[in-house]
Amino acid sequence: MTETSAPVFDRVAIVGIGLIGSSLARALRQYGVARVVVCADRSEAACAKALDLGIVDEAMVDPGAAVRGADAVILCTPVGAYAAVAETIAPHLKPGAVISDVGSVKQAAVRDIGPVLPGGVHFVPAHPVAGTEHSGPEAGFAELFQGRWCIVTPPPGTDAAAVQRVTALWSGVGSRVEVMEPSRHDRILAITSHLPHLIAYTIVGTAADLEEETKSAVIQFSAGGFRDFTRIAASDPIMWRDIFLNNREAVLEILQRFTEDLTALQRAIRWGEGEVLEEHFTKTRAIRRGIIDARQA
Amino acid sequence: MTETSAPVFDRVAIVGIGLIGSSLARALRQYGVARVVVCADRSEAACAKALDLGIVDEAMVDPGAAVRGADAVILCTPVGAYAAVAETIAPHLKPGAVISDVGSVKQAAVRDIGPVLPGGVHFVPAHPVAGTEHSGPEAGFAELFQGRWCIVTPPPGTDAAAVQRVTALWSGVGSRVEVMEPSRHDRILAITSHLPHLIAYTIVGTAADLEEETKSAVIQFSAGGFRDFTRIAASDPIMWRDIFLNNREAVLEILQRFTEDLTALQRAIRWGEGEVLEEHFTKTRAIRRGIIDARQA
Repeated sequence: MTETSAPVFDRVAIVGIGLIGSSLARALRQYGVARVVVCADRSEAACAKALDLGIVDEAMVDPGAAVRGADAVILCTPVGAYAAVAETIAPHLKPGAVISDVGSVKQAAVRDIGPVLPGGVHFVPAHPVAGTEHSGPEAGFAELFQGRWCIVTPPPGTDAAAVQRVTALWSGVGSRVEVMEPSRHDRILAITSHLPHLIAYTIVGTAADLEEETKSAVIQFSAGGFRDFTRIAASDPIMWRDIFLNNREAVLEILQRFTEDLTALQRAIRWGEGEVLEEHFTKTRAIRRGIIDARQA
Repeated sequence: MTETSAPVFDRVAIVGIGLIGSSLARALRQYGVARVVVCADRSEAACAKALDLGIVDEAMVDPGAAVRGADAVILCTPVGAYAAVAETIAPHLKPGAVISDVGSVKQAAVRDIGPVLPGGVHFVPAHPVAGTEHSGPEAGFAELFQGRWCIVTPPPGTDAAAVQRVTALWSGVGSRVEVMEPSRHDRILAITSHLPHLIAYTIVGTAADLEEETKSAVIQFSAGGFRDFTRIAASDPIMWRDIFLNNREAVLEILQRFTEDLTALQRAIRWGEGEVLEEHFTKTRAIRRGIIDARQA
């Protein structure tokens, strides 16, 4: 995946140097996608850490200063901070710069960032479908995006050359890129990511409320399925709060379907309807086979 | 883990040669826990496969024939088959034999197996907390139980020497053994295993009912959390049907708590209550840390 050709961008500014931002910083330089990478983070400790790790050329608290002269600016903050960050950086953006982000909801990104930007810059939202349950600049690694999808969601009328450069950036760090409408992205991710996280957060919370003796046994014998949920439910709380608040309609819609289906299975358990359970459990195997065939397993 | 001392049992009969049964057959011989391992399975193809794989000394369809002369009999069928299998084998059991099982529910095992057995044999239910989403004799492997818990749940009055031998069997194949009451086991597993499986089956079923175009996108972009659920939801349908039917009370009780908690989060999303979400998502991280500290992650 190492690029020997010219970098896609000369100077990239990353705003928010957490798990995704710091992984991107590492990857941009390691794969030669950018020549200079600077970052802004409102945490001075995170800035110091990023410099200490040697993953950026410069780090500062002020995003307005960080984006000056940058050919590309990638927002890697929680989605809830987008509007404020966009307003702060808007006056300092270089004419012709490409603005992008890595957020897990895309209609809200278009809503919050698009209107604030000045004319003459190009806004191309994107979402690398990659991550771990760990947080902070030290949790990142350059290989995080390798072989993973990045979904690019340009609003209608976006400059084709800018879309092309964002696509080249993500291909350069090893991702497979797909372009789709923001609303379609949000519907699909509500199912593949947002609802699973909500469910995992819920079940782990239910366990956390158990009396102490049962809770310690649950931790001890967690290997039977629960452990996988706790990994998911250890993800960054602020990031996930903002995802649910900003993809409300799609999450509530799929959650309603899920609740209906769960109620049907609950009823089958209560009334001892074995054939209903068996039929349902057999159907779900087919989806797993689809994922294995799509080589996503 | 290789044992060089005398085997715990001379001759062991395994009834049901699927993932767990075939893993146990492999492990018993590989670690020298048993000298001779025979199996019964109602599927002739599974018997032929077990012989072909060389993991048992003898294989036959009739469980009554398989248990003749066995010092230990381990039921590895779905829980729903226990009553019928116990009745079939009862007249053929060797006096003094130890009868055990590997089922994920223990009160039902005591209920279905205990009363059918003749005097002079020892019933010691057990549950190795281990498994994969794959099924059948070819899916097993000898290392499956290494470092995993096995929960032994002897009913009151069980012969101490028999409990000791079952403990030695599971220690011999690499497990850590814990003894507890059947009802406590069922309550704990309802949370750590049964509810997570029910939830995973539900969410994957919800996705399976989506219109075709969305469904294929869900499969393509499954890496964001959904993929973990599909792995869990690919587990054996008959086995899981029987678990839910036989641990009904404990599953319905924890499911009720889960539903209340999910409804509270749903409400917070609908009304934009960010601080409720953040507080909940922060709480669940503590449980993950507990699991990491318990070295179960």
